[in-house]
Amino acid sequence: MTGVVVRNIERAEPATIAALAEHGVSTVHEAMGRLGLMKTYMRPIWPGARIAGSAVTVLAHPGDNWMLHVAIEQVKSGDVLVVGVTADNTDGMFGDLLATSLKARGGRGLVIDAGCRDVATLKEMGFPVWSRAISAKGTVKSTLGSVNVPIVCAGAAVDPGDVIVADDDGVVVVRRRTAQAVRIAADKRTANEAEKRAQLAAGALGLDMYGMREALTKAGLRYVDSADEV
Amino acid sequence: MTGVVVRNIERAEPATIAALAEHGVSTVHEAMGRLGLMKTYMRPIWPGARIAGSAVTVLAHPGDNWMLHVAIEQVKSGDVLVVGVTADNTDGMFGDLLATSLKARGGRGLVIDAGCRDVATLKEMGFPVWSRAISAKGTVKSTLGSVNVPIVCAGAAVDPGDVIVADDDGVVVVRRRTAQAVRIAADKRTANEAEKRAQLAAGALGLDMYGMREALTKAGLRYVDSADEV
Amino acid sequence: MTGVVVRNIERAEPATIAALAEHGVSTVHEAMGRLGLMKTYMRPIWPGARIAGSAVTVLAHPGDNWMLHVAIEQVKSGDVLVVGVTADNTDGMFGDLLATSLKARGGRGLVIDAGCRDVATLKEMGFPVWSRAISAKGTVKSTLGSVNVPIVCAGAAVDPGDVIVADDDGVVVVRRRTAQAVRIAADKRTANEAEKRAQLAAGALGLDMYGMREALTKAGLRYVDSADEV
Amino acid sequence: MTGVVVRNIERAEPATIAALAEHGVSTVHEAMGRLGLMKTYMRPIWPGARIAGSAVTVLAHPGDNWMLHVAIEQVKSGDVLVVGVTADNTDGMFGDLLATSLKARGGRGLVIDAGCRDVATLKEMGFPVWSRAISAKGTVKSTLGSVNVPIVCAGAAVDPGDVIVADDDGVVVVRRRTAQAVRIAADKRTANEAEKRAQLAAGALGLDMYGMREALTKAGLRYVDSADEV
Amino acid sequence: MTGVVVRNIERAEPATIAALAEHGVSTVHEAMGRLGLMKTYMRPIWPGARIAGSAVTVLAHPGDNWMLHVAIEQVKSGDVLVVGVTADNTDGMFGDLLATSLKARGGRGLVIDAGCRDVATLKEMGFPVWSRAISAKGTVKSTLGSVNVPIVCAGAAVDPGDVIVADDDGVVVVRRRTAQAVRIAADKRTANEAEKRAQLAAGALGLDMYGMREALTKAGLRYVDSADEV
Amino acid sequence: MTGVVVRNIERAEPATIAALAEHGVSTVHEAMGRLGLMKTYMRPIWPGARIAGSAVTVLAHPGDNWMLHVAIEQVKSGDVLVVGVTADNTDGMFGDLLATSLKARGGRGLVIDAGCRDVATLKEMGFPVWSRAISAKGTVKSTLGSVNVPIVCAGAAVDPGDVIVADDDGVVVVRRRTAQAVRIAADKRTANEAEKRAQLAAGALGLDMYGMREALTKAGLRYVDSADEV
Repeated sequence: MTGVVVRNIERAEPATIAALAEHGVSTVHEAMGRLGLMKTYMRPIWPGARIAGSAVTVLAHPGDNWMLHVAIEQVKSGDVLVVGVTADNTDGMFGDLLATSLKARGGRGLVIDAGCRDVATLKEMGFPVWSRAISAKGTVKSTLGSVNVPIVCAGAAVDPGDVIVADDDGVVVVRRRTAQAVRIAADKRTANEAEKRAQLAAGALGLDMYGMREALTKAGLRYVDSADEV
Repeated sequence: MTGVVVRNIERAEPATIAALAEHGVSTVHEAMGRLGLMKTYMRPIWPGARIAGSAVTVLAHPGDNWMLHVAIEQVKSGDVLVVGVTADNTDGMFGDLLATSLKARGGRGLVIDAGCRDVATLKEMGFPVWSRAISAKGTVKSTLGSVNVPIVCAGAAVDPGDVIVADDDGVVVVRRRTAQAVRIAADKRTANEAEKRAQLAAGALGLDMYGMREALTKAGLRYVDSADEV
Repeated sequence: MTGVVVRNIERAEPATIAALAEHGVSTVHEAMGRLGLMKTYMRPIWPGARIAGSAVTVLAHPGDNWMLHVAIEQVKSGDVLVVGVTADNTDGMFGDLLATSLKARGGRGLVIDAGCRDVATLKEMGFPVWSRAISAKGTVKSTLGSVNVPIVCAGAAVDPGDVIVADDDGVVVVRRRTAQAVRIAADKRTANEAEKRAQLAAGALGLDMYGMREALTKAGLRYVDSADEV
Repeated sequence: MTGVVVRNIERAEPATIAALAEHGVSTVHEAMGRLGLMKTYMRPIWPGARIAGSAVTVLAHPGDNWMLHVAIEQVKSGDVLVVGVTADNTDGMFGDLLATSLKARGGRGLVIDAGCRDVATLKEMGFPVWSRAISAKGTVKSTLGSVNVPIVCAGAAVDPGDVIVADDDGVVVVRRRTAQAVRIAADKRTANEAEKRAQLAAGALGLDMYGMREALTKAGLRYVDSADEV
Repeated sequence: MTGVVVRNIERAEPATIAALAEHGVSTVHEAMGRLGLMKTYMRPIWPGARIAGSAVTVLAHPGDNWMLHVAIEQVKSGDVLVVGVTADNTDGMFGDLLATSLKARGGRGLVIDAGCRDVATLKEMGFPVWSRAISAKGTVKSTLGSVNVPIVCAGAAVDPGDVIVADDDGVVVVRRRTAQAVRIAADKRTANEAEKRAQLAAGALGLDMYGMREALTKAGLRYVDSADEV
Repeated sequence: MTGVVVRNIERAEPATIAALAEHGVSTVHEAMGRLGLMKTYMRPIWPGARIAGSAVTVLAHPGDNWMLHVAIEQVKSGDVLVVGVTADNTDGMFGDLLATSLKARGGRGLVIDAGCRDVATLKEMGFPVWSRAISAKGTVKSTLGSVNVPIVCAGAAVDPGDVIVADDDGVVVVRRRTAQAVRIAADKRTANEAEKRAQLAAGALGLDMYGMREALTKAGLRYVDSADEV
């Protein structure tokens, strides 16, 4: 099953992808029914980026970045490279040279369940990376993996062409076929939230706004005046 | 014991609280005899904030933020919401809507032994949060906890009304009844340190300034000229 | 073996040290054959610093910073203090007073396999620290360690006088006797990379530039047009 | 607040304690409303022990076991020594000599949020310990803590005289004043479970036995015949 | 996508499954090209079990074991229940009652990326479980997940009907369609190893048996007589 | 510095090594002044073994066990193989075939800062291993390391020929040149402890036996009769 590069993958609509980027990770994750989130150890190497793009997937072995070179050839403008590794690993599989190459091919960012290096330079380049570690540890080029096959990255299943949304809250995976539906659900949430935010800013309580009081009482919540009554 | 909201709690004097904020976590922690510190995994979601406030405590179950809504109603101006969870959890129990509401009620910040989301927005709002994780993972509202009962948060016991001091060094809990005494002890440390800092900046050695040489010699410290003599 | 301070250590040439700082951690680490890297948990307390200096080593016991005071007397201009601890520990063994003193003696930075505190002040001072944790937890002064003996810090062996290179990618240790050779190897790598970076920025593929295609084919890599052919 | 030894503490009834031991950690924890559980990193150093006893509490500093010696004098027959530490630490604060002494004074076991050593000997002695680590790292005797004051151990608040229940599932703390009520609630659960176990062993489904089907349907659960219908 | 139970799934041949169990995790993992392994934090709750079975998959939310009850109805003789959770969690979602039920339905074991409790009883029952934690923490029944949909468990993708092999070395997932091929490859490895084991036991060196010397020399390995020559 | 095999190393006296094994890790570690201990994550794969032997050291790259094959040729009867890795890694670099070979050459055990597999078989063979993980993850043979050079293993510096002592408490490294002195210091401790153990078993308190009361009083320890006096 390893040692394969799939050249052609289907991608979601650019407009859908752009809308998902705007919504951001937390809204999209909720809109999907709280699925598809990568582990919380996946952090941006510099704060402030918010991107979405189509996944070009890489299955790599720990400490071996050979397949990243192979994958970059398959990247199209607007894609995000997503790297899963066959065992826990923090080695620095990606640095400024690979970033220069990926950027030149139109890549929007990197999501890697391993380490990244040259982070000061990547920040200067404005190239966004979400990784599990920052590490100068260099890698070998000795074992084949695959490109554009289904992978697991940081606890989330990713198929080639799925939409990756990433920002300061983390990384979420939207299945390609559901991307348009998720976008619509996210639109609704966001429209809904502006109104709520205004009310809360004016001092309204969530207890009233969401009508929680009845359910809380039913569940048995008791209010007492002081600790002595507990 | 769960399912209780205590409406009235005692708080420390505002002037004491303000003074503790100015001293900051490390000085206050030392002034208390090195007690009350939360675990080091509690980190600010953005750097530079330094606050102190009275604890409104929340006992919550993992992945369930129902009681945060309940707690916000009990917050008064200058309070800090402190959330303990009954099992290890990193879910994003708090985001920009709750922050808008908490801020509108006068809340100064949040300390949560779980996850936080919408961190880019919270940073824009200047709303400070110390959490164990950043996570987009949404939560349910299904199990009662309590508000303003004694809790454990990140390894530290917190009673309602205790003073929470938080900055880039972490989070420390000052017992309400000892707050004034701790403040006085911290005043002394700080007064003391300005003088020391000047001497050290001028090249004085701690060895001499603190009179350590005798104790070191007594403990058996040997100075040798080169590694060959070891 | 504990309780010893070695007064005189040999240091590498200042020009060599300066050149290694300029190359940075990732390049130096590669130039050494991928050795000498500290664990990835060693992170800068503020981003952007890049230093190199001669190691003044400290062997300390957990939660005890007595030997840091002893060590500062042995620091010469351009040195980096490197602290190894005999058991895993995150206590805040170093703060702004020690930083003021270390800086006054010409110390360029601190590398500590434990905690650091007063990080907001250290950032204002521009004093760089790489540590495993940020912690306000104070320390005692009760057990002797040693200064300028061989230590292990964050998984790397460090001898007094070794060159420490540290930046946003982490911390690497260059053996003093190999420093000049490593610098030459690093010079070559860097010269080499500028050319490559330009080609990659222009759209060249690493696959072609590094001549990887043949080896990949030999290893059995297959290209297919779609997932159906896998 | 440190440096205090409280000589007299109240304890729960021996019969209540014995009953809680028989129920074990998981049943007791449920009977209390899912509170009071220590972190899951607290593990027995050998499998198979199941104990309950009154907590004699120790507040210690990391790497310093002075207060354990002080605490043993306060132990009465049937007590469990419970040690909280002011910062994360894995040093081996307890070994076979302390175990011999604690056992001779009637101590039933040790619960320590730090390390333990001589574990092969402790197993031979049949002396049960729950700890966060096994470590040969020795400790100093230099900083005062306290005995029989309220502490936090592995995330749980413990007051002197609380009932500690510990077995292969972990450690749970029962507040002294609620011990009798918890015991009654646990008795009910256990009586209840025998009947359920028999039904389930005979092939009954929890879905039917607990009447879950309606709630599941109401929540929207759909059954489909094959993956094609998803 | 959540809230679905798929009733019918395809399973691999019983003979194939039995053969994979006999080979064990490490051999099967190698035979598949070093893929499909779950994270190393998945450990047996008692040593010595070695099983294989068809996966009935469960997608659950943290701290919520509702879907385990749903899933047990779908289990057939020889199946293994495999539980993935939508966020990191250690709560005790499975205990002796569920084990009794699962065993009564023919279930061979449980693989869960969360916690397990009543481990002493499960050991007595001889019911094998691989989990990331042991925890008494009870769970709620409030949020729907799914049964027999593709999941990620401890870093590995699992489809319903895949073959799960588990022993003291961990847990590996064999894709249903490749199970027979993997079994054949594993047969070869095992046949091969008996011969090698005998030679090695007789003192032969792997260097000679695997013909490694030439490649090592080519890679530049140097033998020296003493450290002075390094 | 990599790619070197040193053929001849000096070893400590067999009688010294045997005595250190008998003392065990905790006693030896104390006798050395609390130095040389490996991290607490190094655990035996089965309980009950207690060994000591001369270190044949291996410097390996993560996921690459080529050098273990090289190292076995250098092993003499009574040696312990000690493997350090250049970056954090848990891959299963050692299994039953290597164990068969190492045992045939007289190797007493393995200490590896990475993973181990075939643990059920190794237990049957009675071959002791201390590792940071158990993992079926296979390894490659592509990058040179070194044999019998100074390494760092699990936080401890190890030179070839140092004495490794390992038991259920962990692993400690005794410098070859100090082995005889450490053995004598350990003899004293052990002789000393038998007497103490008898007294403690008879009910004596450490407070009296070690004469701690005066120092405690001097440090300010206060005894009170009840919590009300705190």
